[in-house]
Amino acid sequence: MDENFLLQSPTAQALYHNHAAHLPIIDYHCHLNPKEVAEDHRFSGITELWLGGDHYKWRAMRSNGVDEKFITGNASDWEKFQKWAETMPYCMRNPLYHWTHLELRTAFGINKLLNASTAREIYDECNEKMQSPEFSARGLMRRYKVEVVCTTDDPADTLEHHIATKESGFEVKVLPTWRPDKAMAIDNPSAYRAYIEKLGAISSVEIRNYADLIDALQRRHDFFNSVGCRLSDHGVNEFYAENFTETELNAIFQKVMDGKQPSVEEINKFRSALMLEGGRMDAKAGWTQQFHYGPMRNNNSRMFRKLGPDTGYDSIGTWNTSESLSRFLDKLDSEGNLAKTILYPINPSDNEMIATMIGNFQEGPVPGKIQFGSGWWFNDQLDGMERQMNALSVLGLLSRFVGMLTDSRSFLSYPRHEYFRRCMCNLIGQDVEDGKLPAEEMPFIEQMVEDISYYNAKRYFSF
Amino acid sequence: MDENFLLQSPTAQALYHNHAAHLPIIDYHCHLNPKEVAEDHRFSGITELWLGGDHYKWRAMRSNGVDEKFITGNASDWEKFQKWAETMPYCMRNPLYHWTHLELRTAFGINKLLNASTAREIYDECNEKMQSPEFSARGLMRRYKVEVVCTTDDPADTLEHHIATKESGFEVKVLPTWRPDKAMAIDNPSAYRAYIEKLGAISSVEIRNYADLIDALQRRHDFFNSVGCRLSDHGVNEFYAENFTETELNAIFQKVMDGKQPSVEEINKFRSALMLEGGRMDAKAGWTQQFHYGPMRNNNSRMFRKLGPDTGYDSIGTWNTSESLSRFLDKLDSEGNLAKTILYPINPSDNEMIATMIGNFQEGPVPGKIQFGSGWWFNDQLDGMERQMNALSVLGLLSRFVGMLTDSRSFLSYPRHEYFRRCMCNLIGQDVEDGKLPAEEMPFIEQMVEDISYYNAKRYFSF
Amino acid sequence: MDENFLLQSPTAQALYHNHAAHLPIIDYHCHLNPKEVAEDHRFSGITELWLGGDHYKWRAMRSNGVDEKFITGNASDWEKFQKWAETMPYCMRNPLYHWTHLELRTAFGINKLLNASTAREIYDECNEKMQSPEFSARGLMRRYKVEVVCTTDDPADTLEHHIATKESGFEVKVLPTWRPDKAMAIDNPSAYRAYIEKLGAISSVEIRNYADLIDALQRRHDFFNSVGCRLSDHGVNEFYAENFTETELNAIFQKVMDGKQPSVEEINKFRSALMLEGGRMDAKAGWTQQFHYGPMRNNNSRMFRKLGPDTGYDSIGTWNTSESLSRFLDKLDSEGNLAKTILYPINPSDNEMIATMIGNFQEGPVPGKIQFGSGWWFNDQLDGMERQMNALSVLGLLSRFVGMLTDSRSFLSYPRHEYFRRCMCNLIGQDVEDGKLPAEEMPFIEQMVEDISYYNAKRYFSF
Repeated sequence: MDENFLLQSPTAQALYHNHAAHLPIIDYHCHLNPKEVAEDHRFSGITELWLGGDHYKWRAMRSNGVDEKFITGNASDWEKFQKWAETMPYCMRNPLYHWTHLELRTAFGINKLLNASTAREIYDECNEKMQSPEFSARGLMRRYKVEVVCTTDDPADTLEHHIATKESGFEVKVLPTWRPDKAMAIDNPSAYRAYIEKLGAISSVEIRNYADLIDALQRRHDFFNSVGCRLSDHGVNEFYAENFTETELNAIFQKVMDGKQPSVEEINKFRSALMLEGGRMDAKAGWTQQFHYGPMRNNNSRMFRKLGPDTGYDSIGTWNTSESLSRFLDKLDSEGNLAKTILYPINPSDNEMIATMIGNFQEGPVPGKIQFGSGWWFNDQLDGMERQMNALSVLGLLSRFVGMLTDSRSFLSYPRHEYFRRCMCNLIGQDVEDGKLPAEEMPFIEQMVEDISYYNAKRYFSF
Repeated sequence: MDENFLLQSPTAQALYHNHAAHLPIIDYHCHLNPKEVAEDHRFSGITELWLGGDHYKWRAMRSNGVDEKFITGNASDWEKFQKWAETMPYCMRNPLYHWTHLELRTAFGINKLLNASTAREIYDECNEKMQSPEFSARGLMRRYKVEVVCTTDDPADTLEHHIATKESGFEVKVLPTWRPDKAMAIDNPSAYRAYIEKLGAISSVEIRNYADLIDALQRRHDFFNSVGCRLSDHGVNEFYAENFTETELNAIFQKVMDGKQPSVEEINKFRSALMLEGGRMDAKAGWTQQFHYGPMRNNNSRMFRKLGPDTGYDSIGTWNTSESLSRFLDKLDSEGNLAKTILYPINPSDNEMIATMIGNFQEGPVPGKIQFGSGWWFNDQLDGMERQMNALSVLGLLSRFVGMLTDSRSFLSYPRHEYFRRCMCNLIGQDVEDGKLPAEEMPFIEQMVEDISYYNAKRYFSF
Repeated sequence: MDENFLLQSPTAQALYHNHAAHLPIIDYHCHLNPKEVAEDHRFSGITELWLGGDHYKWRAMRSNGVDEKFITGNASDWEKFQKWAETMPYCMRNPLYHWTHLELRTAFGINKLLNASTAREIYDECNEKMQSPEFSARGLMRRYKVEVVCTTDDPADTLEHHIATKESGFEVKVLPTWRPDKAMAIDNPSAYRAYIEKLGAISSVEIRNYADLIDALQRRHDFFNSVGCRLSDHGVNEFYAENFTETELNAIFQKVMDGKQPSVEEINKFRSALMLEGGRMDAKAGWTQQFHYGPMRNNNSRMFRKLGPDTGYDSIGTWNTSESLSRFLDKLDSEGNLAKTILYPINPSDNEMIATMIGNFQEGPVPGKIQFGSGWWFNDQLDGMERQMNALSVLGLLSRFVGMLTDSRSFLSYPRHEYFRRCMCNLIGQDVEDGKLPAEEMPFIEQMVEDISYYNAKRYFSF
């Protein structure tokens, strides 16, 4: 992992070092905790920072046969780190192997390889360095030249930490993202009722029917906008584009508020309506809507009961989504309400479908108005990123791609932008070396690398 | 893009230059306008030739943020060309970038790169050269050594232009292809009724029921055969292989003729019957049947109302087609009526399914009787062509592949055969260099390259 | 095909020759005939050995236009061999080309290329050498350093040949595998009834209801265990995870025994129940359960009537299996009965789904408890094996992979282990050369190569 890591040709190396490496980071989608930014959180040590909530690493440890005690159990920080260090070599060819060492190198200046025999010295060195304020939440963001970060927030959230962070004068923009998954979750009536009460209270709307619900959401949408929000995000299995009437929606709403379980058809109608309304709000506000679709969540019910969601029991689903997705986008487009949109498939078998779907709704004046999002979650690795960029290239315009985001819960994940930029420069550089792209157009190619690294996102989102 | 463009090894270069480059073109599936061949159409200029109907380019321009005025609107020829030239560098890594420059080089002898600053000189040079009769429809076909072209025609078509072309003594065979999509389109009763009237008139059959419809189609099939037609083609989303009775078919036919909307089940039964009948006609006539399946068409209803079909709003669908496809082929095979068949999936995720499906119905004496068609539409690019050839290679016999076709609406698309041949020679040449294919068998390998480029198609279709 | 065949870098060569080549073979899933091992079968010649039952070769010959007479018909051994030899060059880029020549080289010491002109001499040389006892069933297993072989056996099988083989003192362990496909096949009532009678007789259980059926199967499961069986295997299109009651199961069982056709819903309920019970038996016995899922079998009904199953008319299906698969595994896991499990998808479009699905149910202390099985059947070639290993690498832990199996009906298929090991060493070696894996960790990397070649399987199965 020297300075030319992943850069397998002179052109790739020149592109990366001269045109990508130095640019700031716009991390337009992540799951950082805004409270930790507001409070400039100091981590108790490398175990909290690395293993506190990273279900990628937890999965790898379970696959390696490690007992749950050392993963989410009550083992000591050192014991957990030690098990992770022992697992590290077994992760060779998994992105965790590269990410871990990139993080050690760029955050801690440690060039050693992590394994059972280096565990103790690396643990101690990291923990000692983490005494320094440079390793606070904000310190890490500064270290990686982060310019903007967009967190993921519920409509009923007060956004107090975003406001506090801004008022503190922190030079990195930390903006909220509108993620209304809970407003869609009528499949759990009791939880939904509690959520509606919370949403009603914070929006000062007495929510008695569907129209009230939209009213409350619109008020929160306006508030999010006032705090700098410019994106929405949706975590869905599939797309919903059923027909419905207001009468039906009110009946479904009432049924759920009465604590009765709605049918699958009712759930889909209700979600279809809310997805449309959300799209309209985003279009009117000039936001970008994002759809992270396709995962199958909480597959292990035994562990879900023990640990809850987002603990490493999710995977890639197989669904046929092209028809409902097309109908959904077309409904918004037909009424002139199709906002800028980013589609992130979790199943790479959908890459070509998505890369062509975006072409159906492109129009000026925004270049790349509809985007095929960067390789996400399970696809956030060399093979996944290359497949996403190759599909986008041959079926659309790579040059207009808004590029990388971390989607991470960790303040140490920014080297993934470096990883992406190296991968992208390597792909493009190789094409130049192979004569597939013309060396005479190097100034344009260099600009394209800078655009995908940074400027496309800057122009597209206008934070 | 020198003479060794895409040929990354000495073996690849030798194979291409000595065994592929010089062979004529059999373009057994395209969408050229036969009237333009009959009349030896002279193009008004490069804008008509390139941008008159090429929805690939339109999509790229929309993705690049170009206003519709400059795409399908009333901007001047120069303005449209200019916008295309400005878009060109943004197409890097998209096949349009290579195709455009291959066309400039092989048709116009222009080696400059197209972009905003070269737009004017290239526009002028092309338009000046196009004054010459060499740039007529027939002139372009001669330039690229085209031997046979198969257009795409409706059963109710008079084929007058094919007949006129033949009678004119034009040395390129321009043959019709039987494409009965409209005869299947009972989902639109009023349009269908009009179509039935047209079909009845031209076939001199009063079409009162399903049997009459088949009678009329059979007469047209015979007529197409007499004009040299040797292929059918079907554009379908999915395959249809439902059971039905003649009574049901007659009831469905009557319902549609009465202007009533058939149910989905009725549509599928009717299409299943027509697909079978079509297969029987093809088998009896010794034709080859083609199925281009899987696209999702006209996704953007707003633009469909403005511009109609084939304007750049189609994409790749996700459907599970293996069961109905298997049933359909098996029904024909069981009754001894399975014609030579070419299957073209639009979703590359289906490649392995198709590459194995064809193996279920292979039998002598025709080698490669059932074919996995060349990378098509969205897959007609290096990645798509390589994936198709690799899947066919490892799951079937690449050596028996009938190779490339343009599927194009443009008289300037013949360099795609060169593109394909370079790609194919590169794949095979690399395998020789890597020791995966034995250098001792070079004479056979050279023959294989010639076969896939030209001779397999020549033998398979017997035009 | 010299000693460095497929090994495209010095590191790959060193890994293969020093760490993979010499290790014994654990072939934990195949379809060898145990009778031929017990009797130490002597083959009548190369035609029986190669073409007697190998439907891979039959398919290739049909694709090449060979008449069925020379494939499964009454042509002479020489004529059949000749047609295969003529087909051989047409198989270039198909794995059959490499497999055939690897088999000639490693079993017969023949380095010539097979084609029409070498057919006679190779035929004669093979047949002459096959006179020697080294070419008996056991001789071939010894030649390839086979340590364990697991065949595929029906619960009603006597296992007499496994017992006899063991008692003969043969040094290769030849163990049975529990494959209860026939116990699931209630879609054919008359065949099912006959099967139940056979199963009842051999297990000494009068099977009058569902509980009796489970009782009988459990007794056979115990018996298989006593003969050394440590794996089950299931050949399924899709997964079944429906809810059911014992009352329903009894009614379905009675219906089938009465000769009535069960509905699709009933079939799925019954299969869901049996899959669960099978999983419980495997968990309690400490076995590994295997699922080979996704093929579409017997697509050509005309040839099925002539030749029966497993004759080359199967292919890859397209089904959405993630939901039922997840439910099935979760049901077993929830009750503490999820055995070690290997999932083999036939459609490589499912690779990423499976590579992430296994992560949902991993837990210590067994490393890699849930496995993504090696590229299988149609995927048992370089592209298929690389895709499986790459998906497993980036989404799981390649280091814990139990590696290759032949899944073959032939005693000459062991070179496929060499093929796999070369492919695996090439992948890993290339990563080292590219700096994606650290040369400082070579001892670990060498151990990983040995583990995937042999030791992981040895530890995982504990035969």
